[in-house]
Amino acid sequence: MLFHARMDVRIPHDMDPDVRADLVARERAYSQELQRAGKWPHLWRIVGEYANVSVFDVADNNELHDLLAGLPLFPYMEIVVTPLATHPSDIDA
Amino acid sequence: MLFHARMDVRIPHDMDPDVRADLVARERAYSQELQRAGKWPHLWRIVGEYANVSVFDVADNNELHDLLAGLPLFPYMEIVVTPLATHPSDIDA
Amino acid sequence: MLFHARMDVRIPHDMDPDVRADLVARERAYSQELQRAGKWPHLWRIVGEYANVSVFDVADNNELHDLLAGLPLFPYMEIVVTPLATHPSDIDA
Amino acid sequence: MLFHARMDVRIPHDMDPDVRADLVARERAYSQELQRAGKWPHLWRIVGEYANVSVFDVADNNELHDLLAGLPLFPYMEIVVTPLATHPSDIDA
Amino acid sequence: MLFHARMDVRIPHDMDPDVRADLVARERAYSQELQRAGKWPHLWRIVGEYANVSVFDVADNNELHDLLAGLPLFPYMEIVVTPLATHPSDIDA
Amino acid sequence: MLFHARMDVRIPHDMDPDVRADLVARERAYSQELQRAGKWPHLWRIVGEYANVSVFDVADNNELHDLLAGLPLFPYMEIVVTPLATHPSDIDA
Amino acid sequence: MLFHARMDVRIPHDMDPDVRADLVARERAYSQELQRAGKWPHLWRIVGEYANVSVFDVADNNELHDLLAGLPLFPYMEIVVTPLATHPSDIDA
Amino acid sequence: MLFHARMDVRIPHDMDPDVRADLVARERAYSQELQRAGKWPHLWRIVGEYANVSVFDVADNNELHDLLAGLPLFPYMEIVVTPLATHPSDIDA
Amino acid sequence: MLFHARMDVRIPHDMDPDVRADLVARERAYSQELQRAGKWPHLWRIVGEYANVSVFDVADNNELHDLLAGLPLFPYMEIVVTPLATHPSDIDA
Amino acid sequence: MLFHARMDVRIPHDMDPDVRADLVARERAYSQELQRAGKWPHLWRIVGEYANVSVFDVADNNELHDLLAGLPLFPYMEIVVTPLATHPSDIDA
Repeated sequence: MLFHARMDVRIPHDMDPDVRADLVARERAYSQELQRAGKWPHLWRIVGEYANVSVFDVADNNELHDLLAGLPLFPYMEIVVTPLATHPSDIDA
Repeated sequence: MLFHARMDVRIPHDMDPDVRADLVARERAYSQELQRAGKWPHLWRIVGEYANVSVFDVADNNELHDLLAGLPLFPYMEIVVTPLATHPSDIDA
Repeated sequence: MLFHARMDVRIPHDMDPDVRADLVARERAYSQELQRAGKWPHLWRIVGEYANVSVFDVADNNELHDLLAGLPLFPYMEIVVTPLATHPSDIDA
Repeated sequence: MLFHARMDVRIPHDMDPDVRADLVARERAYSQELQRAGKWPHLWRIVGEYANVSVFDVADNNELHDLLAGLPLFPYMEIVVTPLATHPSDIDA
Repeated sequence: MLFHARMDVRIPHDMDPDVRADLVARERAYSQELQRAGKWPHLWRIVGEYANVSVFDVADNNELHDLLAGLPLFPYMEIVVTPLATHPSDIDA
Repeated sequence: MLFHARMDVRIPHDMDPDVRADLVARERAYSQELQRAGKWPHLWRIVGEYANVSVFDVADNNELHDLLAGLPLFPYMEIVVTPLATHPSDIDA
Repeated sequence: MLFHARMDVRIPHDMDPDVRADLVARERAYSQELQRAGKWPHLWRIVGEYANVSVFDVADNNELHDLLAGLPLFPYMEIVVTPLATHPSDIDA
Repeated sequence: MLFHARMDVRIPHDMDPDVRADLVARERAYSQELQRAGKWPHLWRIVGEYANVSVFDVADNNELHDLLAGLPLFPYMEIVVTPLATHPSDIDA
Repeated sequence: MLFHARMDVRIPHDMDPDVRADLVARERAYSQELQRAGKWPHLWRIVGEYANVSVFDVADNNELHDLLAGLPLFPYMEIVVTPLATHPSDIDA
Repeated sequence: MLFHARMDVRIPHDMDPDVRADLVARERAYSQELQRAGKWPHLWRIVGEYANVSVFDVADNNELHDLLAGLPLFPYMEIVVTPLATHPSDIDA
């Protein structure tokens, strides 16, 4: 089941650089683990912004929330989730 | 080069049903032709709305505009395009 | 799996009264059938508006979209869907 | 009498972790006490956000305000309350 | 129990003048009947707009919705209701 | 002459508690003095928010601005003022 | 007493050209009469829009509402009124 | 003196096709005449929308308003004008 | 050439009181100097807000930007500029 | 390929003045280097704001994102990018 998410990152400017570097590194590892597991099939940077557009493939709403709430950068993100359905014109559907 | 588009369809309620059916059928054919050509790799319905989230893969901005302006439903759509870049954490990039 | 929906109804003022009465009657029947089937566990009127807040219980996103797109008043509604997860403080969860 | 509330939590990033943990624990206890008393019949997490959708069942507006203003996290919440009425198509009404 | 309402009137420009005059006259009579009954204690015009700010005094949410839905101009109004509580600094409370 | 005001209070979380308590006490005293003088005939709490809806009765715009700018909490408030006129259906007008 | 108003004109495209010309001519005459009477001291066109920024000088809110509601184009305008006070740095105040 | 303008075109769907074609042709001629005169140095299409971003070079505000109000499509456009100044980092300034 | 500006002042709550007093005093002197020079013909306080509505009379866009960027409070202001043209009904134009 | 960008700068008020001066100087050098390379053909200040309107000429979306993310002030900017296409009425196209 697919969900669209727009995720804007707002890390405070006064965060300790080491804490920040560690957070970003853990975010990257977490994201790549979910990508490899097939849970996060699409991840794109929005041009000019510290933000991404993502598509998640999960079993249900609870799994998606747990996955997002587990993001190391979750406390510094504004996330908007939109549920997706199969489009009737999709040739692969 | 990838672009994200949200497309909301607003067909007037008083459109002649045959005209509408023809428009929608041509939209579907046009969309599927572009999907087969690899120009429109993702197309999802937004749950509960007459709207879609799409990703386009085109050579440049002009190609994307021509493609969108050619949609049979273009005069009845509100479209917002967002340019996408490769995300540094994308395992396929 | 639960979803929250806010549904605003915007029936054109110049709709034929009989067509309108028929639509509204079919909407009611359709809604009650879904309530009885357990798919639409909560339905409330927003005070002062021709709008409702609903909670749906469905198997997945596709089922929800089909259910909503099948509403007789769907062409005259603005619907915003929000996916819900279990709250960690919910005593029934 | 039912009211819908959307509650977004915005705890400052620089709050002392112990103060925060205490606040969150008291919020949980307070919420569960109100749930057990039948005042807070529905509580859902919004997927991807530190926010909830709630339904309260209270005697009047003053009771609802006192209840909300008493939330340990109230100073850190943005709350929007919407009064609900019985929907004419509700099969349980 | 008090509720604040902002009510914007949007009568279509092409409404038959007699139908309009009748609607407006019935709105006025209905409003004055509710004022006399103590249900609509405050009613002010917003300067420069075809809109009002009102305060209603009703037993509960259902009574308020029935009262508002019964307004002859209800189909042509955009209404936003805000529940009010006693203010702790109110000298009359 | 009547004016409607919505006043949202946003006291910084890190304000010294004694300073805050003093400010709130002076706000209350100031408000009650104006109520007794007939300048602030209505004051209601918005349910679930640290905000109020007020109606002021003043001689002119300058008096209203001086009155509002004199609020001890003025530096921490977001205020929106709307001028009110007599409504043609008001039975007391 | 001064008030700022932004007035956007939205005349329906299908209005009869003679009716429109008559309305616009009456609007102009009405406006100039009020300017001559000192009630409408400033009137500017917003560049690129069918809209104006105006300043009115009236005795009170009721006079301003009557004046605005009497505009021949009032039914086709969206007006937002902002009350003005003397600025403490104004050298003419 | 430069001004930025975003211009969104909203031609009614029910406009007579010949009237529309004539309007669009006259718009094009008018635009090209102004481009040749150096008044409209930049004109770009916004991808996916019936809208443009333009830069105008005019002597003053009045000239810009007259120029824009003279557009054959002016009654069907929503225009937002932003005045531009020389940027201190502009290497051509 | 006239421009309308709305200027909202947002001085941080934790600014040193002496620094603030100095800034405000210099702002006042700067504003009055420009008023005397005929560059800032209108300056009004918005009732209930730390904001003003101003009209500037300058030779061109660059002069206006330099003038505004030179305001002592410029770093703490949110300014929106709207270019004004002569209104065809203005009796003084 | 052209892109429009609006860039708003929000440097924290408490940034060390030397750090700030260094950032701004590096921003200027970086911008001028890109202008000389033909990547940033237009750069204008928005009158009254610490913001600019820019047009970039790049090979693709990735180049644009890298260019923008490399701005020394990027962490303190809010940027909105809009892709541009050739306008059919552009006499130079």
